Amino acid sequence: MIDGQDRQHRDRMARAVLTWIAEPGDAQLVAVLRRTSPATVVAALTTGSALGTAPAGRGLDRARQRWTARLGDAPTGATVEAWERDGIRLVCPGDPEWPSQLEVLGDAQPWGLWVRGQVDLRFACLHSVSIVGTRAATAYGIHVTAELAAALAGRGWTVVSGGAFGIDSQAHRGALAAEGATVAVLPSGLDAPYPRSHHNLFEAIVAHGALVSEQPPSRTPTRPGFLVRNRLIAALSRGTVLVEAALRSGALNTARHARDLNRPLMAVPGPVTSMASAGCHQVIRDWGGVCVTDVHDILACLSFSPGDMAALSRGPVLPRDELDPVSLSVLEAVPARVGRGPARIAVSAGVDFDTVLRCLGKLAAGGFIERCERGWRIRRPDDPVRVSGPPISQILPDSGHVRCYPAQ
Amino acid sequence: MIDGQDRQHRDRMARAVLTWIAEPGDAQLVAVLRRTSPATVVAALTTGSALGTAPAGRGLDRARQRWTARLGDAPTGATVEAWERDGIRLVCPGDPEWPSQLEVLGDAQPWGLWVRGQVDLRFACLHSVSIVGTRAATAYGIHVTAELAAALAGRGWTVVSGGAFGIDSQAHRGALAAEGATVAVLPSGLDAPYPRSHHNLFEAIVAHGALVSEQPPSRTPTRPGFLVRNRLIAALSRGTVLVEAALRSGALNTARHARDLNRPLMAVPGPVTSMASAGCHQVIRDWGGVCVTDVHDILACLSFSPGDMAALSRGPVLPRDELDPVSLSVLEAVPARVGRGPARIAVSAGVDFDTVLRCLGKLAAGGFIERCERGWRIRRPDDPVRVSGPPISQILPDSGHVRCYPAQ
Repeated sequence: MIDGQDRQHRDRMARAVLTWIAEPGDAQLVAVLRRTSPATVVAALTTGSALGTAPAGRGLDRARQRWTARLGDAPTGATVEAWERDGIRLVCPGDPEWPSQLEVLGDAQPWGLWVRGQVDLRFACLHSVSIVGTRAATAYGIHVTAELAAALAGRGWTVVSGGAFGIDSQAHRGALAAEGATVAVLPSGLDAPYPRSHHNLFEAIVAHGALVSEQPPSRTPTRPGFLVRNRLIAALSRGTVLVEAALRSGALNTARHARDLNRPLMAVPGPVTSMASAGCHQVIRDWGGVCVTDVHDILACLSFSPGDMAALSRGPVLPRDELDPVSLSVLEAVPARVGRGPARIAVSAGVDFDTVLRCLGKLAAGGFIERCERGWRIRRPDDPVRVSGPPISQILPDSGHVRCYPAQ
Repeated sequence: MIDGQDRQHRDRMARAVLTWIAEPGDAQLVAVLRRTSPATVVAALTTGSALGTAPAGRGLDRARQRWTARLGDAPTGATVEAWERDGIRLVCPGDPEWPSQLEVLGDAQPWGLWVRGQVDLRFACLHSVSIVGTRAATAYGIHVTAELAAALAGRGWTVVSGGAFGIDSQAHRGALAAEGATVAVLPSGLDAPYPRSHHNLFEAIVAHGALVSEQPPSRTPTRPGFLVRNRLIAALSRGTVLVEAALRSGALNTARHARDLNRPLMAVPGPVTSMASAGCHQVIRDWGGVCVTDVHDILACLSFSPGDMAALSRGPVLPRDELDPVSLSVLEAVPARVGRGPARIAVSAGVDFDTVLRCLGKLAAGGFIERCERGWRIRRPDDPVRVSGPPISQILPDSGHVRCYPAQ
């Protein structure tokens, strides 16, 4: 048992190092990891010995030089612990929090994901939709994005996006306005989420969702990094909705990933006179993207029948017996009607405060509990999903015309 | 020969009577005409004898009562001649001007079409596109319709529509603004085209295109007549473009006909916040309609390669040897560079004035000649299609923001 834990710890540390020394999706490392475990790779790089059974070659030699150059300041156990104290945890394949739908990426799965936020990433992404689009959004795109995101969040869906200016940030804001979970997949390290001016938005996402990155803390975004990040947005979610995208928008890259991964690809049409919608029309016309105009179209495209949708909006999306013992004891401590704050729940459940916060996020994403004025309470099966929370004006500062509609 | 002409004359007169006594698409008459010629049917109704080999039945009896009730004031030879003097001609299956693409309607082909206008209907509709949509058009729909119609007309395509308020009339106006041919398929008799307030527009269409109706002169539109008319719009054209349509718009009926006839069905997307575009999005999402955003999308959907399009915009769409001798002599009389008026062309060609006007329309629709300031001239193969004519403000009175773009 100790050996198993030790092996697991070494694997995690090796994956932390891999995120540091290699860019996400590095094809040479993907090839090496097909034959060799992360711990063996890192050990070989550190000692200068041969890379397991990997065939030698000039490409591999150059890659090895690249990796070794960064090995000097790679994170140690102490570094990773310090990051964890700052709320940035490493989630690895095999962890309970690892989103199983990433298996669609095959060998090109991330070696690990850095996560910061209150929700359990796997739970949050079980029912998630990506909403992506151009940074140069129009008032129309902003409006439609916020409406769709709020409507999806109000029905228990997690909204995944890239945290960028324009459509992305509006998707997160719309979900937050409906007190839903939202996940931002960022191209930068999570200690300094990019773009910096979205600091307040990112803090809100940490409180009600999660920031995710393949890049370790302190890493700044690179151009190729944006594109590799996009595949993760598509892979994390059940389907991708493109709201506004010019013909050469990076958001089309995310749409292409969704198509290549055989995930439902949707696009919101717009005026043909608006270049910001040209990419959406291209996706509909040439890529087989589904033309969606409201939340019902999106849910239909995700193959949820009206019955499923009603069930989703009324009760938990997961059975209780999928919960771990700690989450179960936290759930037992959440009252049925009047809300209770996390501190009191922690006392009742006999669990420490940080764990309670994490469990509450997981339970909310799973549809078991909901926020109310005094804290948290059980979500009753016959309740419509509540749409409340802070005044929308606080969350949606740059949009005067967003309507936050209640679940029907 | 005399017998043949006599038989042909009796067939035409019988068809004129059929358009008078039966509504277009009358299922009982369609069934009767499967076994019996129009002349025999009219003779039987007049004399009260049995309807050829048609099986008797209560449905047929009631239909016969309907037809006979209208027989009293059915048009005679003198009536039809008077209508012809007013410019309203009857075009019948088998006539040179009969649009052969109507064969797609099978037994349900019109028994005859009343036509008023300068172009040859068959020639004009060889390369034609229907543009249809809601009467309650928005400024966006008006703008897009006029642009598409002008761009199609500028490339030698005839724009077919229904002459109604909103999208329909704007489609005609856009084509006229580009000096293209346009065909309005009306639900009323052509002596009083409906809607009346489009009098000036209809006169412009008569001068540069054609008004078409299955209804004889003096007939006012009926509600079922609108729907039956829509199948004709779809059948006359190579493909149908829906610009704006609410979910229950009559224009969706035309779109359904285009789909059922296996003609390319296209729709122009719009803001999802606009109910006027909801029908277009439905057509794209659920009916397999192609999302089109500009003239290139439309031509691509009609399976014209860029090479074809360039040829179309440069030269005739029909070979000279498809022209009848009279049209050929008129074509010979049209000068190459400086324009010549119809009266002088009539003298040169040795053809009467009315025939010249009709031939000129046919030759223009066929791409052989073009209007210029002084009348008509040969369209040169390397000329771009000219976009000129009356000031747009005259033709597009209710749209301040229409751009008439030249063919590229």
